[in-house]
Amino acid sequence: MAIKKLGKQTVQFKNPPTIISTATIVGPKEGEGPLRSYFDRILTDDLYGENSWELAESKMLRETVKAAIEKGDKKISDMEYMLAGDLLNQLMSTSFAARDLGIPFLGIYGACSNMAESLSLGSMLIDGEYADYLVAVTSSHYSSAERQYRFPLELGNQRSLSAQWTVTGSGAAILASKGKGPKITHITTGKVIDLGIKDVNNMGAAMAPAAVDTIVTHFKDTGFKPEDYDLIVTGDLASVGKEIAQDMIGDVGYDMSKVYNDCGLLIFDNEKQDTHAGGSGCGCSATVFCGYIYKEMKKRNLNKVLLVSTGALLSTTSSQQGQSIPGIAHAVRIVNDV
Amino acid sequence: MAIKKLGKQTVQFKNPPTIISTATIVGPKEGEGPLRSYFDRILTDDLYGENSWELAESKMLRETVKAAIEKGDKKISDMEYMLAGDLLNQLMSTSFAARDLGIPFLGIYGACSNMAESLSLGSMLIDGEYADYLVAVTSSHYSSAERQYRFPLELGNQRSLSAQWTVTGSGAAILASKGKGPKITHITTGKVIDLGIKDVNNMGAAMAPAAVDTIVTHFKDTGFKPEDYDLIVTGDLASVGKEIAQDMIGDVGYDMSKVYNDCGLLIFDNEKQDTHAGGSGCGCSATVFCGYIYKEMKKRNLNKVLLVSTGALLSTTSSQQGQSIPGIAHAVRIVNDV
Repeated sequence: MAIKKLGKQTVQFKNPPTIISTATIVGPKEGEGPLRSYFDRILTDDLYGENSWELAESKMLRETVKAAIEKGDKKISDMEYMLAGDLLNQLMSTSFAARDLGIPFLGIYGACSNMAESLSLGSMLIDGEYADYLVAVTSSHYSSAERQYRFPLELGNQRSLSAQWTVTGSGAAILASKGKGPKITHITTGKVIDLGIKDVNNMGAAMAPAAVDTIVTHFKDTGFKPEDYDLIVTGDLASVGKEIAQDMIGDVGYDMSKVYNDCGLLIFDNEKQDTHAGGSGCGCSATVFCGYIYKEMKKRNLNKVLLVSTGALLSTTSSQQGQSIPGIAHAVRIVNDV
Repeated sequence: MAIKKLGKQTVQFKNPPTIISTATIVGPKEGEGPLRSYFDRILTDDLYGENSWELAESKMLRETVKAAIEKGDKKISDMEYMLAGDLLNQLMSTSFAARDLGIPFLGIYGACSNMAESLSLGSMLIDGEYADYLVAVTSSHYSSAERQYRFPLELGNQRSLSAQWTVTGSGAAILASKGKGPKITHITTGKVIDLGIKDVNNMGAAMAPAAVDTIVTHFKDTGFKPEDYDLIVTGDLASVGKEIAQDMIGDVGYDMSKVYNDCGLLIFDNEKQDTHAGGSGCGCSATVFCGYIYKEMKKRNLNKVLLVSTGALLSTTSSQQGQSIPGIAHAVRIVNDV
């Protein structure tokens, strides 16, 4: 048997799962951003024909799953598990989509780290031979998230400059035990890290230490260095968190500057789109990965990627009770056959 | 390689994971119920020395994990994963406990099906050799759940007779690749089922069809029948849901009457404790399994158990928007060496 456990937090797969297809659906604002050409579908109305933003988000997640399955030349009934979650209380978006799809369902919650968490668990389920095909998916929606976490949009509250803009979008990936496409070779599962940030308008700063912890652990467990990657991409630290993360990792002795970027900075043009620090939400790293990164890997413009989705594990209740914001990050190494 | 996938939804393990230890902490009311002697710790005050019920729930989950690890003669640092979730928005109870424990953390959400979901995923991670030790844990708290899902307790609202009483309690299980104790041999992962129930005071009825679907699938996938079990126990269908489930399974041709019970009926004496239809909440099947069932298995009074934790995937938002209640159930087969 090959070495599978590297250190305490990293697994190297014997039979690296293949991402045979992905799909993305995004909202109008995301469709005006720099990555517009990478998304499969851009909604013209963020209600998507539904009566509420929550139902629109659920439909977006469901249709993204269907699109990913179709692009992989598979049927819904081929999917053995659906690993999914979202930001809404009790995963409303995911639960209703899972009901409509009828795929055996394992709900997950890691806030905006969902994409990496579902890819991590999914990879173990494929490599471990518990499934030949499964879907990993997540979503977020600006309007449903704002009213749940912050203020009714109708109030028109001013946003602080460190605030991030929740991405309206869903990204789905089909993992398979065989087939063509980029492969997941390693995962590093994160711990919850909390350095005491309480500002809910500065989630990048709250999540950065978790991203740093996971990335440094990944380097130590695997022996990989920044130069072993074409791209190391955090989930949604945005401008404030990205700078903190890069500095903190620099302090440990790794220079990531040449290969490091953040999904929250890639998805919007902050200057032109007034998105302040950048994008956030489960849909941020999901659509950037399933859209831009996956397609660039298929074109072989990117070959070795470390996806580090980051989550802020706060709730309105925890904030109202004066608690700080726990952060988490999971890392997934995806490579093209060389 | 042994057969591992049975049907579309069931896995049989090659190296069945061992549950080397469990622990439970419950609230005062649960400590007055029929299972009182099985719980490791009974709180005299459901605030547990904290300033809020949410923080009390989080402390309960954290201390239950520590107790389970200690009873298994292990250290926190031996745990390679913590698979956990709870009912609070964004898993507040779990997230803060995971922060304090520092174990690599994979958050899950299946409402009251959490115990079976975490045991299912945990079993695949152990059998697949991704971990030698991990903890599966969940919690619920009457007071934090009531105010999040229903009404402020101070209102003293009258409860309908089909309503259930959220268990204040946490149950944790340590899964290991070797060691002594009951073993998990099969898991059957459920689909989301929704037959249109909208009454949030009748969650047993909403979840029963999901339990039926998973149990019948388990029988069909494995060839097991009710008589292959000493106990088939659903999560928290309570009196209304249990009767529906037993009837529906009878209609399919399986007579479960001799071995079937429900954790929501076991934990309280509904007559004396005024708990109406019975117990509910993630803590219900968690404390009944980790307390009563596990200890009876260790004494060999029970040898073959099917734990079917059931979850109602509603949120206050989905109910307010007029949606029905999606249900889910996951089944875990636990046996003593014969």
